[in-house]
Amino acid sequence: MRIGVLGTGMVGETIGARLVGLGHEVRMGSRDAGNARAAAWGAAQGARASHGTFADAAAFGELLFNCTAGGHSLDALAAAGAEHLAGKILVDVANPLDHSQGFPPSLLFCNTDSLGERIQRAYPDVKVVKTLNTMNALVMVDPTRVPGTHDVFVSGDDADAKAQVIALLRAFGWERPIDLGDISTARGTEMMLPIWIRLYAALKTGDFNVAVARAG
Amino acid sequence: MRIGVLGTGMVGETIGARLVGLGHEVRMGSRDAGNARAAAWGAAQGARASHGTFADAAAFGELLFNCTAGGHSLDALAAAGAEHLAGKILVDVANPLDHSQGFPPSLLFCNTDSLGERIQRAYPDVKVVKTLNTMNALVMVDPTRVPGTHDVFVSGDDADAKAQVIALLRAFGWERPIDLGDISTARGTEMMLPIWIRLYAALKTGDFNVAVARAG
Repeated sequence: MRIGVLGTGMVGETIGARLVGLGHEVRMGSRDAGNARAAAWGAAQGARASHGTFADAAAFGELLFNCTAGGHSLDALAAAGAEHLAGKILVDVANPLDHSQGFPPSLLFCNTDSLGERIQRAYPDVKVVKTLNTMNALVMVDPTRVPGTHDVFVSGDDADAKAQVIALLRAFGWERPIDLGDISTARGTEMMLPIWIRLYAALKTGDFNVAVARAG
Repeated sequence: MRIGVLGTGMVGETIGARLVGLGHEVRMGSRDAGNARAAAWGAAQGARASHGTFADAAAFGELLFNCTAGGHSLDALAAAGAEHLAGKILVDVANPLDHSQGFPPSLLFCNTDSLGERIQRAYPDVKVVKTLNTMNALVMVDPTRVPGTHDVFVSGDDADAKAQVIALLRAFGWERPIDLGDISTARGTEMMLPIWIRLYAALKTGDFNVAVARAG
């Protein structure tokens, strides 16, 4: 499949590389077509990888990943262009971090809204699926880094889109993605950021994840 | 030990009964000394159980549990009286739920503050330990209701107080309480309420809990 990855940070690089490894053609998009980090990533990933502007990546992809910083995601999507997003699945892995008060970051908004919902409201004809936003990037694409069975959550309004994203998650190695329901359930996963940060400090590793223990 | 339990809801009843079962003397406190629910609870629990006002329960307890609704906790503590709280450990299991917009509830405040911190700021000479606020009441006092190893979190500024509360948690059956750090880490656990509610809806049972999967 042709996949556009918006964002050139650690998350975009890691997800993009994993998708290339799975045989997909991946175009990484950034604000600036000459982004040196995206160029280096593309060179390292080989023939199935390319890079360009947000609009280039969005136009290229049959399915898109939002790996931009959550506070800039709506700007990045505007730069990508509504005409390049329309009708497509957008996998939103971003959290709206507020670093303005130093460490630990808080959220720019939460509780009665979420980034997943804001994107869905801004682009009603995009199929937004929120997932992978509750773990670090290396665990996102390789859950075997953390021992045992543990979980990834999926939120979205479109059942077919969630099924396609769940198939991709299974290809990443996730055995039992949990469908939480519509896109408003992204509030629940985005609000796990604060406990993730405290656990990261307490455990001194990013190689952990939440598992939902239950019968069955 | 003599323990005061503030609050006569499902959480207070369940924790109070478990503490009586472990051999503690428990006084349940409510707004009104004649609270019928507290009286029924006391009659059912036998000689080690008693009930009275918030002030009666707080004066009685060497250690206190806040099991009131989070939106009313500061009022309940004011009714209990600062002189009856001073120097004691207060185990805060409440979440500041906002039911004003219907289901699902949101939080009255979060992100840059927490109920645990508000109580600690209001009563600097109380040793507030936030814990047990990330699961339902039956699981709080009997983690074996959920299969496998799973987790309870502890937040607080006083190391000795946390050690005493962790000993109580072990008596409840918790094998490995996770100390997240100071009371500000209560933001992380209170903000798990939204994912808990979505999981409750998706799993159709309250018999689940979060486990932190990690090496070691």
